[in-house]
Amino acid sequence: MTTPTADAAKQLYKEAIVIDCLNVSNWESPAVFQSLHAGGVTAINATVATWENYQETLDNIAAWFRRFREYNDILVQVKTIDELLQAKQNGKVGIIFGSQNASPIENDLDRLALFHALGMRVIQVTYHERNLLGNGCWERRDEGLSNFGVDAVREMNALGILIDLSHVGDRTTLEAIEQSEKPVAITHANARSYFNHPRNKTDDALKLLKERNGVIGATSITSFLPTQFESTLEDYVDAIDDMVERVGIDHVGVGTDFTQDQPTSFWEYIGAQQGTKYPSTFVNPEVRYDQLPMSPKGFETPDKFPDLGAALLKRGYKPDEVTKILGRNWLRLFREVWVE
Amino acid sequence: MTTPTADAAKQLYKEAIVIDCLNVSNWESPAVFQSLHAGGVTAINATVATWENYQETLDNIAAWFRRFREYNDILVQVKTIDELLQAKQNGKVGIIFGSQNASPIENDLDRLALFHALGMRVIQVTYHERNLLGNGCWERRDEGLSNFGVDAVREMNALGILIDLSHVGDRTTLEAIEQSEKPVAITHANARSYFNHPRNKTDDALKLLKERNGVIGATSITSFLPTQFESTLEDYVDAIDDMVERVGIDHVGVGTDFTQDQPTSFWEYIGAQQGTKYPSTFVNPEVRYDQLPMSPKGFETPDKFPDLGAALLKRGYKPDEVTKILGRNWLRLFREVWVE
Repeated sequence: MTTPTADAAKQLYKEAIVIDCLNVSNWESPAVFQSLHAGGVTAINATVATWENYQETLDNIAAWFRRFREYNDILVQVKTIDELLQAKQNGKVGIIFGSQNASPIENDLDRLALFHALGMRVIQVTYHERNLLGNGCWERRDEGLSNFGVDAVREMNALGILIDLSHVGDRTTLEAIEQSEKPVAITHANARSYFNHPRNKTDDALKLLKERNGVIGATSITSFLPTQFESTLEDYVDAIDDMVERVGIDHVGVGTDFTQDQPTSFWEYIGAQQGTKYPSTFVNPEVRYDQLPMSPKGFETPDKFPDLGAALLKRGYKPDEVTKILGRNWLRLFREVWVE
Repeated sequence: MTTPTADAAKQLYKEAIVIDCLNVSNWESPAVFQSLHAGGVTAINATVATWENYQETLDNIAAWFRRFREYNDILVQVKTIDELLQAKQNGKVGIIFGSQNASPIENDLDRLALFHALGMRVIQVTYHERNLLGNGCWERRDEGLSNFGVDAVREMNALGILIDLSHVGDRTTLEAIEQSEKPVAITHANARSYFNHPRNKTDDALKLLKERNGVIGATSITSFLPTQFESTLEDYVDAIDDMVERVGIDHVGVGTDFTQDQPTSFWEYIGAQQGTKYPSTFVNPEVRYDQLPMSPKGFETPDKFPDLGAALLKRGYKPDEVTKILGRNWLRLFREVWVE
């Protein structure tokens, strides 16, 4: 292992496709887009819904179309691989619509095609709790996919929507990977064996994800790291190391779960039972997430992304490995899943 | 046992409170209301939603308010015990709003209060398949009530909405009875030990229902009777007999599940997965329900209700027992559950 120079690190990062496969920041804050652009991020999976229903999600998407016009110097919607590569070439931040819940389709599979037509390319099967497809990681029980869930997986496969299993219950996670004809994603989670938390994934899930050629985004959100609110960028690199050891260099990406500029109301909404009752059984209202460092020291916001590239190089990853982690693994998965 | 005269039977029926705790007819057909009125029915649990969501159900209810004006000589809304007794006194048919699914509240418990304010007095926890509260009788698995389902039961108890478990899965049924602080209903089903069908209820469920002082409406829908499409009024009385033997005379009512004047589209809608995909795993599209006798010969429509009274008397039930079955058991349950 040779110690890379700072210049070599900069050059590597400059050329890399950088994909953050989960960002759930406050989209009404201009600082969020400035930070993404400053960090040279190629594309993010931008959350357009957590608990929202059909109409609310359509409204959220409508707001994005307004933003694409407002920030057209630095933002661009990404629906295809070509558009993603074009974003890189033009130095813009690509916005991939993703939903962290299947709630936007309510009870109608036909709406998957409608959301796909609007640019939705990632959908998480469930969010925290139960929905019509299956169960979330905080449900009191998880019996796996429903009739509707099995069909939804099939339809997402057919349309080319990447299935995300980050917040999904253990059994529903396994069944979704099994039922899916295409590889799936866990966009933002670590291993439960690394840090024991319901949001981190079981060894079984990671094994099956890898076997089926999926990708997991190691997450920097401090609640899911052993070092918790004291975590630094180096601690996040430790989590990436751990995941690479578990599933191999071809199956690990980045999913920060950045929550930049989110107000208290956001934490109450995502921590509410079904998005309506706060506090729920799965949050401790004493913990003020809005006042805690949810991202590691030295990797607080997307403008620090170049430092992650440098830290990975410094840790001993070869340039080819660094670019896989930074974005090429996600790109490969998008190519396999998105129908164009 | 003395054979009652036809006149005695008529007089008994004339004075009886007659409640059909499930009617899902075509509310756009005037013949439905004429038949109910001709049959001297005091009140029905009228289905305002099966798969419908929040907005659709509100629209359905809005249509009812139009009908109450249009048919104000023979129909009246019933939200209280007083209004029910008043309907009897005035010779009008009382309409109790009921939903066969919790889908109208979507993911928001606050909407239970809104529907209650509009007159909803019966809600079935699930319909055929999974929803946010629990699982239906046709789901591939049933793990019982969700977090949200437990809270919904509590909220329905508090508001005074009768919990219906007819189309509900076996485990969800048991858990709902256990969780409910008030007695519950199975508005329209028979015993599975009497006729083996997923829509008929298990011995465990019937036992627990009785222990907690609930009521079950023996149903005349021919698919759930051993004699199937050949069934007559006498066969329905057999099913009532069977249920009285199982749970006792104080826990049996009538829940016909009449589907008067319903078109093909209705059968396709209720038989669709989540109300959107037809055929589903739980219907055989070869069976044309719209062309089959779904109600017994001699008890096809509500205008034949007096014949049911006579048949019960003829079967040997005492007048006091006949009136319990025809409506007094439901009335007792409504009194215990509805908050006024």
